[in-house]
Amino acid sequence: MEVIDGNRIAAALIAELKAEVAAITGRKPCIALVRVGDDPASVSYVKKKGQTAAEIGIESRILLPPAAIGQAALERLVESLNGDAGVDGILVQSPLPGGLDERAVFGRIAPEKDVDGFHPVNLGKVVQGDESGFSPCTPAGIMELLARSAVNLEGKHVVVLGRSLIVGRPAALLALQNRAGANATVTVCHSRTLDLPSLARQADVLIAAIGRPGFVTADLVKPGAVVIDVGINRVADPARKSGHRLVGDVDFPSVSPIASMITPVPGGVGPMTVAMLMRNTVKAFRLRRGG
Amino acid sequence: MEVIDGNRIAAALIAELKAEVAAITGRKPCIALVRVGDDPASVSYVKKKGQTAAEIGIESRILLPPAAIGQAALERLVESLNGDAGVDGILVQSPLPGGLDERAVFGRIAPEKDVDGFHPVNLGKVVQGDESGFSPCTPAGIMELLARSAVNLEGKHVVVLGRSLIVGRPAALLALQNRAGANATVTVCHSRTLDLPSLARQADVLIAAIGRPGFVTADLVKPGAVVIDVGINRVADPARKSGHRLVGDVDFPSVSPIASMITPVPGGVGPMTVAMLMRNTVKAFRLRRGG
Repeated sequence: MEVIDGNRIAAALIAELKAEVAAITGRKPCIALVRVGDDPASVSYVKKKGQTAAEIGIESRILLPPAAIGQAALERLVESLNGDAGVDGILVQSPLPGGLDERAVFGRIAPEKDVDGFHPVNLGKVVQGDESGFSPCTPAGIMELLARSAVNLEGKHVVVLGRSLIVGRPAALLALQNRAGANATVTVCHSRTLDLPSLARQADVLIAAIGRPGFVTADLVKPGAVVIDVGINRVADPARKSGHRLVGDVDFPSVSPIASMITPVPGGVGPMTVAMLMRNTVKAFRLRRGG
Repeated sequence: MEVIDGNRIAAALIAELKAEVAAITGRKPCIALVRVGDDPASVSYVKKKGQTAAEIGIESRILLPPAAIGQAALERLVESLNGDAGVDGILVQSPLPGGLDERAVFGRIAPEKDVDGFHPVNLGKVVQGDESGFSPCTPAGIMELLARSAVNLEGKHVVVLGRSLIVGRPAALLALQNRAGANATVTVCHSRTLDLPSLARQADVLIAAIGRPGFVTADLVKPGAVVIDVGINRVADPARKSGHRLVGDVDFPSVSPIASMITPVPGGVGPMTVAMLMRNTVKAFRLRRGG
Protein backbone atom coordinates (compact mmCIF):
# COMPACT_ATOMS: atom_id res chain seq x y z
CA MET A 1 0.00 0.00 0.00
CA GLU A 2 1.26 3.43 -0.98
CA VAL A 3 0.18 6.67 0.69
CA ILE A 4 -0.15 9.32 -2.01
CA ASP A 5 1.72 12.36 -0.72
CA GLY A 6 -0.31 15.36 -1.78
CA ASN A 7 2.09 17.76 -0.12
CA ARG A 8 5.00 16.43 -2.16
CA ILE A 9 3.07 16.40 -5.44
CA ALA A 10 1.66 19.88 -4.85
CA ALA A 11 5.16 21.14 -4.02
CA ALA A 12 6.45 19.76 -7.32
CA LEU A 13 3.65 21.50 -9.21
CA ILE A 14 4.29 24.74 -7.32
CA ALA A 15 8.01 24.55 -8.17
CA GLU A 16 7.14 24.12 -11.85
CA LEU A 17 4.79 27.10 -11.74
CA LYS A 18 7.45 29.16 -9.95
CA ALA A 19 9.94 28.47 -12.75
CA GLU A 20 7.28 29.28 -15.34
CA VAL A 21 6.37 32.59 -13.69
CA ALA A 22 10.03 33.51 -13.22
CA ALA A 23 10.46 33.27 -17.00
CA ILE A 24 7.63 35.75 -17.63
CA THR A 25 8.98 39.15 -18.56
CA GLY A 26 7.05 42.24 -17.50
CA ARG A 27 3.91 42.12 -15.42
CA LYS A 28 3.43 38.88 -13.47
CA PRO A 29 0.09 37.00 -13.14
CA CYS A 30 -2.26 38.43 -10.52
CA ILE A 31 -5.09 36.84 -8.57
CA ALA A 32 -7.74 38.76 -6.63
CA LEU A 33 -8.83 36.90 -3.49
CA VAL A 34 -12.19 38.08 -2.18
CA ARG A 35 -13.12 37.00 1.33
CA VAL A 36 -16.47 38.20 2.64
CA GLY A 37 -16.66 38.23 6.44
CA ASP A 38 -14.52 36.37 8.97
CA ASP A 39 -15.43 32.68 8.80
CA PRO A 40 -12.37 31.03 10.41
CA ALA A 41 -11.98 28.33 7.74
CA SER A 42 -12.22 30.98 5.01
CA VAL A 43 -9.61 33.13 6.79
CA SER A 44 -7.25 30.17 6.80
CA TYR A 45 -7.92 29.17 3.16
CA VAL A 46 -7.47 32.68 1.79
CA LYS A 47 -4.26 33.12 3.80
CA LYS A 48 -2.89 29.87 2.38
CA LYS A 49 -3.81 30.92 -1.17
CA GLY A 50 -2.05 34.27 -0.74
CA GLN A 51 1.05 32.54 0.65
CA THR A 52 1.19 30.03 -2.20
CA ALA A 53 0.75 32.81 -4.76
CA ALA A 54 3.67 34.70 -3.18
CA GLU A 55 5.82 31.57 -3.19
CA ILE A 56 5.25 31.18 -6.94
CA GLY A 57 5.67 34.86 -7.75
CA ILE A 58 1.99 35.43 -8.51
CA GLU A 59 0.76 38.80 -7.29
CA SER A 60 -2.29 38.62 -5.06
CA ARG A 61 -4.75 41.28 -4.03
CA ILE A 62 -6.78 40.44 -0.99
CA LEU A 63 -10.16 42.14 -0.70
CA LEU A 64 -12.02 41.84 2.60
CA PRO A 65 -15.53 43.24 2.33
CA PRO A 66 -17.65 42.93 5.49
CA ALA A 67 -20.26 40.18 5.84
CA ALA A 68 -22.93 42.89 5.59
CA ILE A 69 -21.81 44.01 2.10
CA GLY A 70 -25.03 42.96 0.35
CA GLN A 71 -25.57 41.19 -2.97
CA ALA A 72 -25.51 44.20 -5.27
CA ALA A 73 -22.35 45.70 -3.79
CA LEU A 74 -20.56 42.34 -3.91
CA GLU A 75 -21.51 41.92 -7.56
CA ARG A 76 -20.27 45.45 -8.28
CA LEU A 77 -16.97 44.56 -6.61
CA VAL A 78 -16.69 41.52 -8.89
CA GLU A 79 -17.51 43.67 -11.92
CA SER A 80 -14.77 46.13 -11.00
CA LEU A 81 -12.29 43.24 -10.86
CA ASN A 82 -13.58 41.96 -14.21
CA GLY A 83 -12.77 45.37 -15.68
CA ASP A 84 -9.35 45.65 -14.04
CA ALA A 85 -6.73 44.87 -16.69
CA GLY A 86 -4.16 44.07 -13.99
CA VAL A 87 -6.21 41.18 -12.55
CA ASP A 88 -6.01 37.78 -14.29
CA GLY A 89 -7.94 35.60 -11.89
CA ILE A 90 -10.74 36.22 -9.41
CA LEU A 91 -11.53 33.92 -6.50
CA VAL A 92 -14.51 34.58 -4.25
CA GLN A 93 -14.01 32.33 -1.22
CA SER A 94 -16.88 29.93 -0.58
CA PRO A 95 -19.02 29.69 1.49
CA LEU A 96 -20.42 33.21 1.46
CA PRO A 97 -22.20 34.46 4.59
CA GLY A 98 -25.93 33.69 4.72
CA GLY A 99 -28.18 35.89 2.62
CA LEU A 100 -25.74 36.17 -0.28
CA ASP A 101 -26.50 34.24 -3.50
CA GLU A 102 -23.28 32.39 -4.23
CA ARG A 103 -24.33 31.12 -7.67
CA ALA A 104 -25.24 34.64 -8.78
CA VAL A 105 -21.88 35.96 -7.57
CA PHE A 106 -19.90 33.19 -9.31
CA GLY A 107 -21.96 33.76 -12.45
CA ARG A 108 -20.93 37.42 -12.41
CA ILE A 109 -17.19 36.65 -12.62
CA ALA A 110 -15.89 37.07 -16.18
CA PRO A 111 -15.43 33.48 -17.47
CA GLU A 112 -11.88 34.23 -18.60
CA LYS A 113 -10.98 35.26 -15.01
CA ASP A 114 -12.97 32.46 -13.31
CA VAL A 115 -9.96 30.52 -12.01
CA ASP A 116 -12.14 28.66 -9.49
CA GLY A 117 -14.08 27.16 -12.42
CA PHE A 118 -17.64 27.65 -11.15
CA HIS A 119 -19.02 29.91 -13.87
CA PRO A 120 -21.53 27.95 -16.00
CA VAL A 121 -19.42 28.57 -19.13
CA ASN A 122 -16.47 26.82 -17.49
CA LEU A 123 -18.62 23.98 -16.13
CA GLY A 124 -20.06 23.60 -19.63
CA LYS A 125 -16.56 23.37 -21.07
CA VAL A 126 -15.82 20.59 -18.57
CA VAL A 127 -18.86 18.75 -19.99
CA GLN A 128 -17.62 19.38 -23.54
CA GLY A 129 -14.01 18.49 -22.74
CA ASP A 130 -13.04 21.94 -24.09
CA GLU A 131 -9.68 22.70 -22.51
CA SER A 132 -9.90 26.44 -23.16
CA GLY A 133 -11.86 26.77 -19.91
CA PHE A 134 -11.00 26.36 -16.24
CA SER A 135 -11.77 23.15 -14.37
CA PRO A 136 -12.80 23.40 -10.72
CA CYS A 137 -9.64 23.15 -8.64
CA THR A 138 -10.39 20.21 -6.35
CA PRO A 139 -11.47 17.70 -9.03
CA ALA A 140 -8.71 18.95 -11.34
CA GLY A 141 -6.32 18.40 -8.44
CA ILE A 142 -7.56 14.83 -8.04
CA MET A 143 -6.89 14.14 -11.73
CA GLU A 144 -3.40 15.64 -11.35
CA LEU A 145 -2.70 13.58 -8.22
CA LEU A 146 -3.70 10.42 -10.07
CA ALA A 147 -1.68 11.29 -13.17
CA ARG A 148 1.44 12.06 -11.10
CA SER A 149 0.94 8.80 -9.18
CA ALA A 150 0.90 6.89 -12.50
CA VAL A 151 -2.76 5.87 -12.12
CA ASN A 152 -4.25 5.73 -15.63
CA LEU A 153 -8.04 5.80 -15.41
CA GLU A 154 -8.65 4.33 -18.86
CA GLY A 155 -11.18 1.53 -18.60
CA LYS A 156 -11.14 1.76 -14.80
CA HIS A 157 -14.39 1.97 -12.87
CA VAL A 158 -14.35 5.22 -10.91
CA VAL A 159 -17.03 5.47 -8.24
CA VAL A 160 -17.61 8.97 -6.90
CA LEU A 161 -19.38 9.24 -3.54
CA GLY A 162 -21.11 12.62 -3.45
CA ARG A 163 -22.61 14.80 -6.19
CA SER A 164 -21.62 18.28 -5.03
CA LEU A 165 -21.04 20.99 -7.59
CA ILE A 166 -17.59 21.64 -6.15
CA VAL A 167 -16.28 18.06 -6.27
CA GLY A 168 -18.57 15.15 -7.15
CA ARG A 169 -20.18 16.24 -10.39
CA PRO A 170 -17.08 17.83 -12.00
CA ALA A 171 -14.86 14.95 -10.82
CA ALA A 172 -17.19 12.51 -12.58
CA LEU A 173 -17.13 14.60 -15.76
CA LEU A 174 -13.33 14.90 -15.77
CA ALA A 175 -12.82 11.16 -15.25
CA LEU A 176 -15.28 10.48 -18.09
CA GLN A 177 -13.60 12.76 -20.64
CA ASN A 178 -12.34 11.28 -23.86
CA ARG A 179 -8.62 11.92 -23.40
CA ALA A 180 -5.48 10.18 -22.24
CA GLY A 181 -5.48 9.52 -18.49
CA ALA A 182 -9.28 9.81 -18.30
CA ASN A 183 -11.68 7.56 -20.28
CA ALA A 184 -12.99 6.00 -17.07
CA THR A 185 -16.31 4.27 -16.58
CA VAL A 186 -17.96 6.44 -13.93
CA THR A 187 -20.62 5.91 -11.27
CA VAL A 188 -21.90 8.69 -9.02
CA CYS A 189 -23.50 7.72 -5.68
CA HIS A 190 -25.05 10.10 -3.16
CA SER A 191 -27.46 10.42 -0.26
CA ARG A 192 -30.36 8.92 -2.24
CA THR A 193 -28.40 5.89 -3.46
CA LEU A 194 -30.06 2.72 -2.24
CA ASP A 195 -27.16 0.27 -2.12
CA LEU A 196 -24.06 2.43 -1.93
CA PRO A 197 -21.82 -0.28 -0.42
CA SER A 198 -22.26 -2.70 -3.32
CA LEU A 199 -21.44 0.04 -5.83
CA ALA A 200 -18.49 1.37 -3.81
CA ARG A 201 -17.06 -2.16 -3.65
CA GLN A 202 -16.96 -2.28 -7.46
CA ALA A 203 -14.65 0.75 -7.65
CA ASP A 204 -11.15 0.46 -9.01
CA VAL A 205 -10.80 4.09 -7.97
CA LEU A 206 -13.03 5.32 -5.14
CA ILE A 207 -13.42 9.08 -4.67
CA ALA A 208 -15.08 9.99 -1.36
CA ALA A 209 -16.53 13.50 -1.24
CA ILE A 210 -19.55 13.40 1.02
CA GLY A 211 -18.44 15.26 4.14
CA ARG A 212 -19.06 12.46 6.64
CA PRO A 213 -16.07 11.65 8.84
CA GLY A 214 -14.85 8.07 8.51
CA PHE A 215 -17.85 7.03 6.39
CA VAL A 216 -15.84 4.79 4.06
CA THR A 217 -14.84 1.74 6.05
CA ALA A 218 -12.96 -1.31 4.77
CA ASP A 219 -16.15 -3.18 3.90
CA LEU A 220 -16.91 -0.54 1.24
CA VAL A 221 -13.58 -0.97 -0.53
CA LYS A 222 -12.43 -3.58 -3.01
CA PRO A 223 -8.99 -4.91 -2.08
CA GLY A 224 -6.40 -3.21 -4.27
CA ALA A 225 -8.53 -0.14 -5.00
CA VAL A 226 -7.11 3.38 -5.22
CA VAL A 227 -8.87 5.51 -2.59
CA ILE A 228 -9.06 9.30 -2.87
CA ASP A 229 -10.34 11.05 0.24
CA VAL A 230 -11.72 14.52 -0.44
CA GLY A 231 -13.37 14.97 2.95
CA ILE A 232 -12.13 17.67 5.30
CA ASN A 233 -14.17 17.24 8.47
CA ARG A 234 -13.46 18.96 11.76
CA VAL A 235 -14.04 16.63 14.69
CA ALA A 236 -13.71 17.55 18.36
CA ASP A 237 -10.42 16.46 19.92
CA PRO A 238 -9.88 17.69 23.47
CA ALA A 239 -6.31 16.37 23.35
CA ARG A 240 -5.40 19.08 20.82
CA LYS A 241 -4.72 22.70 21.65
CA SER A 242 -7.18 23.78 18.95
CA GLY A 243 -9.83 21.47 20.40
CA HIS A 244 -10.33 19.74 17.05
CA ARG A 245 -8.60 17.77 14.34
CA LEU A 246 -9.24 17.25 10.63
CA VAL A 247 -10.36 13.86 9.40
CA GLY A 248 -11.41 12.65 5.97
CA ASP A 249 -14.44 10.74 4.71
CA VAL A 250 -12.35 7.57 4.74
CA ASP A 251 -11.60 5.52 7.83
CA PHE A 252 -7.87 5.46 7.15
CA PRO A 253 -6.91 2.80 9.74
CA SER A 254 -9.27 0.16 8.34
CA VAL A 255 -9.05 1.09 4.64
CA SER A 256 -5.33 1.72 4.18
CA PRO A 257 -4.29 -1.93 4.67
CA ILE A 258 -6.47 -3.12 1.76
CA ALA A 259 -6.09 -0.18 -0.67
CA SER A 260 -3.30 -0.20 -3.23
CA MET A 261 -2.98 3.58 -2.91
CA ILE A 262 -4.70 6.07 -0.62
CA THR A 263 -4.60 9.79 0.08
CA PRO A 264 -4.31 10.94 3.68
CA VAL A 265 -6.21 13.81 5.33
CA PRO A 266 -4.62 16.26 5.76
CA GLY A 267 -1.87 16.17 3.15
CA GLY A 268 -3.71 14.48 0.28
CA VAL A 269 -6.15 16.29 -2.00
CA GLY A 270 -6.14 19.54 0.02
CA PRO A 271 -2.75 20.89 -1.05
CA MET A 272 -3.57 20.09 -4.69
CA THR A 273 -6.62 22.38 -4.65
CA VAL A 274 -4.49 25.44 -3.91
CA ALA A 275 -1.82 24.40 -6.44
CA MET A 276 -4.43 23.97 -9.19
CA LEU A 277 -5.86 27.42 -8.41
CA MET A 278 -2.42 28.82 -9.08
CA ARG A 279 -2.10 26.84 -12.28
CA ASN A 280 -5.45 28.20 -13.44
CA THR A 281 -4.25 31.72 -12.63
CA VAL A 282 -1.12 31.31 -14.76
CA LYS A 283 -3.31 29.84 -17.52
CA ALA A 284 -5.68 32.82 -17.30
CA PHE A 285 -2.72 35.19 -17.54
CA ARG A 286 -1.43 33.41 -20.67
CA LEU A 287 -4.86 33.24 -22.34
CA ARG A 288 -5.48 36.92 -21.65
CA ARG A 289 -2.04 37.85 -23.05
CA GLY A 290 -2.81 35.69 -26.08
CA GLY A 291 0.01 33.23 -25.31
CA MET B 1 -44.25 -5.36 -20.42
CA GLU B 2 -45.37 -1.94 -21.57
CA VAL B 3 -44.17 -0.26 -24.75
CA ILE B 4 -43.72 3.45 -24.02
CA ASP B 5 -45.50 5.28 -26.81
CA GLY B 6 -43.31 8.29 -27.61
CA ASN B 7 -45.66 9.42 -30.36
CA ARG B 8 -48.60 9.59 -27.96
CA ILE B 9 -46.62 11.33 -25.21
CA ALA B 10 -45.09 13.82 -27.65
CA ALA B 11 -48.54 14.51 -29.07
CA ALA B 12 -49.84 15.28 -25.57
CA LEU B 13 -46.95 17.68 -24.97
CA ILE B 14 -47.49 19.31 -28.36
CA ALA B 15 -51.20 19.77 -27.59
CA GLU B 16 -50.30 21.47 -24.30
CA LEU B 17 -47.86 23.77 -26.06
CA LYS B 18 -50.45 24.57 -28.73
CA ALA B 19 -52.93 25.66 -26.05
CA GLU B 20 -50.21 27.68 -24.34
CA VAL B 21 -49.20 29.45 -27.57
CA ALA B 22 -52.84 30.09 -28.51
CA ALA B 23 -53.20 32.02 -25.26
CA ILE B 24 -50.28 34.32 -26.09
CA THR B 25 -51.48 37.71 -27.26
CA GLY B 26 -49.48 39.58 -29.87
CA ARG B 27 -46.36 38.19 -31.49
CA LYS B 28 -46.01 34.40 -31.27
CA PRO B 29 -42.77 32.55 -30.44
CA CYS B 30 -40.40 32.15 -33.38
CA ILE B 31 -37.64 29.63 -34.06
CA ALA B 32 -34.95 30.02 -36.71
CA LEU B 33 -33.98 26.66 -38.23
CA VAL B 34 -30.60 26.76 -39.94
CA ARG B 35 -29.75 23.85 -42.21
CA VAL B 36 -26.38 23.99 -43.93
CA GLY B 37 -26.23 21.85 -47.08
CA ASP B 38 -28.45 18.98 -48.14
CA ASP B 39 -27.70 15.99 -45.92
CA PRO B 40 -30.83 13.84 -46.35
CA ALA B 41 -31.30 13.15 -42.63
CA SER B 42 -30.92 16.87 -41.87
CA VAL B 43 -33.46 17.73 -44.58
CA SER B 44 -35.93 15.38 -42.96
CA TYR B 45 -35.27 16.58 -39.37
CA VAL B 46 -35.57 20.28 -40.24
CA LYS B 47 -38.77 19.62 -42.18
CA LYS B 48 -40.25 17.79 -39.18
CA LYS B 49 -39.25 20.63 -36.84
CA GLY B 50 -40.89 23.20 -39.11
CA GLN B 51 -44.06 21.12 -39.31
CA THR B 52 -44.26 20.66 -35.55
CA ALA B 53 -43.70 24.39 -35.00
CA ALA B 54 -46.56 25.15 -37.40
CA GLU B 55 -48.81 22.67 -35.65
CA ILE B 56 -48.21 24.43 -32.33
CA GLY B 57 -48.48 27.93 -33.74
CA ILE B 58 -44.78 28.71 -33.38
CA GLU B 59 -43.44 30.74 -36.27
CA SER B 60 -40.42 29.21 -37.99
CA ARG B 61 -37.88 30.75 -40.31
CA ILE B 62 -35.92 28.24 -42.32
CA LEU B 63 -32.48 29.35 -43.48
CA LEU B 64 -30.68 27.17 -45.99
CA PRO B 65 -27.12 28.35 -46.54
CA PRO B 66 -25.05 26.23 -48.94
CA ALA B 67 -22.54 23.66 -47.63
CA ALA B 68 -19.77 25.94 -48.94
CA ILE B 69 -20.82 28.87 -46.71
CA GLY B 70 -17.60 28.88 -44.64
CA GLN B 71 -17.11 29.25 -40.90
CA ALA B 72 -17.01 33.05 -40.69
CA ALA B 73 -20.14 33.57 -42.80
CA LEU B 74 -22.06 30.94 -40.83
CA GLU B 75 -21.08 32.61 -37.55
CA ARG B 76 -22.17 35.98 -38.97
CA LEU B 77 -25.52 34.43 -39.88
CA VAL B 78 -25.89 33.21 -36.29
CA GLU B 79 -24.95 36.68 -35.00
CA SER B 80 -27.60 38.28 -37.17
CA LEU B 81 -30.21 35.91 -35.69
CA ASN B 82 -28.91 36.72 -32.19
CA GLY B 83 -29.57 40.38 -32.91
CA ASP B 84 -33.00 39.82 -34.47
CA ALA B 85 -35.61 40.77 -31.87
CA GLY B 86 -38.25 38.67 -33.67
CA VAL B 87 -36.31 35.42 -33.21
CA ASP B 88 -36.63 33.59 -29.86
CA GLY B 89 -34.81 30.37 -30.60
CA ILE B 90 -32.01 29.37 -32.95
CA LEU B 91 -31.35 25.81 -34.04
CA VAL B 92 -28.38 24.96 -36.23
CA GLN B 93 -28.99 21.43 -37.47
CA SER B 94 -26.24 18.97 -36.61
CA PRO B 95 -24.13 17.51 -38.14
CA LEU B 96 -22.60 20.39 -40.11
CA PRO B 97 -20.81 19.57 -43.36
CA GLY B 98 -17.12 18.72 -42.99
CA GLY B 99 -14.75 21.63 -42.48
CA LEU B 100 -17.15 23.59 -40.28
CA ASP B 101 -16.43 23.79 -36.53
CA GLU B 102 -19.70 22.80 -34.90
CA ARG B 103 -18.66 23.67 -31.34
CA ALA B 104 -17.60 27.17 -32.41
CA VAL B 105 -20.94 27.70 -34.19
CA PHE B 106 -22.98 26.46 -31.22
CA GLY B 107 -20.88 28.64 -28.90
CA ARG B 108 -21.76 31.67 -31.03
CA ILE B 109 -25.53 31.30 -30.46
CA ALA B 110 -26.76 33.70 -27.77
CA PRO B 111 -27.33 31.49 -24.69
CA GLU B 112 -30.86 32.89 -24.23
CA LYS B 113 -31.75 31.73 -27.78
CA ASP B 114 -29.88 28.40 -27.59
CA VAL B 115 -32.98 26.18 -27.60
CA ASP B 116 -30.90 23.14 -28.61
CA GLY B 117 -28.99 23.48 -25.31
CA PHE B 118 -25.44 23.03 -26.61
CA HIS B 119 -23.92 26.37 -25.62
CA PRO B 120 -21.47 25.88 -22.72
CA VAL B 121 -23.52 28.22 -20.51
CA ASN B 122 -26.54 25.97 -20.91
CA LEU B 123 -24.52 22.77 -20.41
CA GLY B 124 -23.05 24.38 -17.28
CA LYS B 125 -26.55 25.13 -16.01
CA VAL B 126 -27.42 21.46 -16.50
CA VAL B 127 -24.43 20.64 -14.27
CA GLN B 128 -25.61 23.21 -11.71
CA GLY B 129 -29.26 22.16 -11.90
CA ASP B 130 -30.06 25.79 -12.75
CA GLU B 131 -33.42 25.66 -14.51
CA SER B 132 -33.05 29.10 -16.07
CA GLY B 133 -31.13 27.48 -18.93
CA PHE B 134 -32.05 25.10 -21.75
CA SER B 135 -31.43 21.37 -21.47
CA PRO B 136 -30.42 19.48 -24.60
CA CYS B 137 -33.61 18.22 -26.24
CA THR B 138 -33.00 14.48 -26.47
CA PRO B 139 -31.98 13.88 -22.83
CA ALA B 140 -34.67 16.31 -21.64
CA GLY B 141 -37.12 14.32 -23.77
CA ILE B 142 -36.01 11.10 -22.06
CA MET B 143 -36.68 12.65 -18.64
CA GLU B 144 -40.09 13.80 -19.83
CA LEU B 145 -40.92 10.36 -21.27
CA LEU B 146 -40.03 8.76 -17.94
CA ALA B 147 -41.97 11.30 -15.88
CA ARG B 148 -45.07 10.90 -18.07
CA SER B 149 -44.73 7.10 -17.81
CA ALA B 150 -44.72 7.40 -13.99
CA VAL B 151 -41.11 6.21 -13.69
CA ASN B 152 -39.60 8.01 -10.71
CA LEU B 153 -35.80 7.79 -10.88
CA GLU B 154 -35.22 8.51 -7.20
CA GLY B 155 -32.81 5.95 -5.80
CA LYS B 156 -32.87 4.00 -9.06
CA HIS B 157 -29.65 2.95 -10.74
CA VAL B 158 -29.57 4.54 -14.19
CA VAL B 159 -26.92 3.12 -16.50
CA VAL B 160 -26.22 5.22 -19.58
CA LEU B 161 -24.49 3.49 -22.49
CA GLY B 162 -22.62 6.17 -24.45
CA ARG B 163 -21.01 9.44 -23.40
CA SER B 164 -21.87 11.71 -26.33
CA LEU B 165 -22.31 15.40 -25.75
CA ILE B 166 -25.76 15.25 -27.36
CA VAL B 167 -27.19 12.44 -25.25
CA GLY B 168 -25.01 10.43 -22.86
CA ARG B 169 -23.34 13.10 -20.76
CA PRO B 170 -26.34 15.44 -20.37
CA ALA B 171 -28.69 12.48 -19.75
CA ALA B 172 -26.43 11.37 -16.90
CA LEU B 173 -26.37 14.90 -15.45
CA LEU B 174 -30.15 15.29 -15.66
CA ALA B 175 -30.81 11.93 -13.98
CA LEU B 176 -28.35 12.88 -11.22
CA GLN B 177 -29.91 16.26 -10.42
CA ASN B 178 -31.18 16.92 -6.95
CA ARG B 179 -34.88 17.32 -7.72
CA ALA B 180 -38.11 15.37 -7.74
CA GLY B 181 -38.17 12.72 -10.46
CA ALA B 182 -34.38 12.69 -10.74
CA ASN B 183 -32.04 11.86 -7.81
CA ALA B 184 -30.83 8.71 -9.56
CA THR B 185 -27.59 6.88 -8.96
CA VAL B 186 -25.88 7.10 -12.35
CA THR B 187 -23.27 5.05 -14.21
CA VAL B 188 -21.91 6.02 -17.63
CA CYS B 189 -20.39 3.29 -19.81
CA HIS B 190 -18.79 3.76 -23.22
CA SER B 191 -16.41 2.29 -25.76
CA ARG B 192 -13.55 2.05 -23.24
CA THR B 193 -15.60 0.32 -20.55
CA LEU B 194 -14.07 -3.05 -19.74
CA ASP B 195 -17.09 -5.01 -18.50
CA LEU B 196 -20.10 -3.24 -19.91
CA PRO B 197 -22.47 -6.22 -19.66
CA SER B 198 -22.08 -6.60 -15.89
CA LEU B 199 -22.77 -2.88 -15.37
CA ALA B 200 -25.68 -2.83 -17.83
CA ARG B 201 -27.25 -5.76 -16.00
CA GLN B 202 -27.32 -3.69 -12.78
CA ALA B 203 -29.49 -1.01 -14.36
CA ASP B 204 -32.98 -0.33 -13.10
CA VAL B 205 -33.20 2.08 -16.03
CA LEU B 206 -30.96 1.41 -19.02
CA ILE B 207 -30.44 4.22 -21.54
CA ALA B 208 -28.78 3.04 -24.75
CA ALA B 209 -27.19 5.81 -26.82
CA ILE B 210 -24.21 4.33 -28.59
CA GLY B 211 -25.28 4.14 -32.22
CA ARG B 212 -24.81 0.40 -32.70
CA PRO B 213 -27.84 -1.39 -34.10
CA GLY B 214 -29.21 -4.10 -31.82
CA PHE B 215 -26.21 -3.88 -29.45
CA VAL B 216 -28.29 -4.33 -26.28
CA THR B 217 -29.44 -7.94 -26.22
CA ALA B 218 -31.42 -9.65 -23.46
CA ASP B 219 -28.29 -10.84 -21.64
CA LEU B 220 -27.39 -7.19 -20.95
CA VAL B 221 -30.72 -6.41 -19.28
CA LYS B 222 -31.95 -7.10 -15.76
CA PRO B 223 -35.45 -8.59 -15.82
CA GLY B 224 -37.94 -5.86 -15.00
CA ALA B 225 -35.68 -3.00 -16.10
CA VAL B 226 -36.95 0.08 -17.94
CA VAL B 227 -35.13 0.28 -21.29
CA ILE B 228 -34.81 3.56 -23.20
CA ASP B 229 -33.51 3.20 -26.73
CA VAL B 230 -31.97 6.39 -28.11
CA GLY B 231 -30.33 4.78 -31.14
CA ILE B 232 -31.51 5.72 -34.62
CA ASN B 233 -29.51 3.51 -36.96
CA ARG B 234 -30.19 3.09 -40.65
CA VAL B 235 -29.73 -0.50 -41.73
CA ALA B 236 -30.09 -1.80 -45.26
CA ASP B 237 -33.43 -3.47 -45.99
CA PRO B 238 -33.99 -4.44 -49.62
CA ALA B 239 -37.60 -5.28 -48.80
CA ARG B 240 -38.37 -1.59 -48.27
CA LYS B 241 -38.92 0.94 -50.99
CA SER B 242 -36.36 3.27 -49.35
CA GLY B 243 -33.83 0.43 -49.22
CA HIS B 244 -33.34 0.87 -45.48
CA ARG B 245 -35.12 0.85 -42.16
CA LEU B 246 -34.45 2.50 -38.80
CA VAL B 247 -33.46 0.34 -35.85
CA GLY B 248 -32.43 1.25 -32.33
CA ASP B 249 -29.46 0.27 -30.19
CA VAL B 250 -31.68 -2.28 -28.46
CA ASP B 251 -32.55 -5.68 -29.86
CA PHE B 252 -36.28 -5.23 -29.32
CA PRO B 253 -37.38 -8.84 -29.95
CA SER B 254 -35.11 -10.31 -27.27
CA VAL B 255 -35.24 -7.44 -24.75
CA SER B 256 -38.92 -6.51 -24.78
CA PRO B 257 -40.11 -9.75 -23.12
CA ILE B 258 -37.94 -9.18 -20.04
CA ALA B 259 -38.18 -5.37 -19.70
CA SER B 260 -40.94 -3.83 -17.60
CA MET B 261 -41.11 -0.89 -20.01
CA ILE B 262 -39.32 -0.21 -23.27
CA THR B 263 -39.27 2.48 -25.96
CA PRO B 264 -39.56 1.40 -29.58
CA VAL B 265 -37.59 2.76 -32.53
CA PRO B 266 -39.07 4.60 -34.29
CA GLY B 267 -41.80 6.11 -32.12
CA GLY B 268 -39.98 6.27 -28.78
CA VAL B 269 -37.45 8.95 -27.89
CA GLY B 270 -37.35 10.48 -31.39
CA PRO B 271 -40.70 12.33 -31.30
CA MET B 272 -39.85 13.70 -27.84
CA THR B 273 -36.72 15.44 -29.12
CA VAL B 274 -38.74 17.62 -31.48
CA ALA B 275 -41.42 18.30 -28.85
CA MET B 276 -38.78 19.40 -26.31
CA LEU B 277 -37.23 21.74 -28.87
CA MET B 278 -40.61 23.41 -29.15
CA ARG B 279 -40.98 23.59 -25.39
CA ASN B 280 -37.56 25.24 -25.15
CA THR B 281 -38.64 27.74 -27.83
CA VAL B 282 -41.74 28.72 -25.88
CA LYS B 283 -39.58 28.98 -22.73
CA ALA B 284 -37.09 31.22 -24.58
CA PHE B 285 -39.97 33.41 -25.74
CA ARG B 286 -41.28 33.76 -22.18
CA LEU B 287 -37.85 34.43 -20.66
CA ARG B 288 -37.10 37.08 -23.30
CA ARG B 289 -40.46 38.74 -22.69
CA GLY B 290 -39.77 38.61 -18.96
CA GLY B 291 -42.69 36.28 -18.29
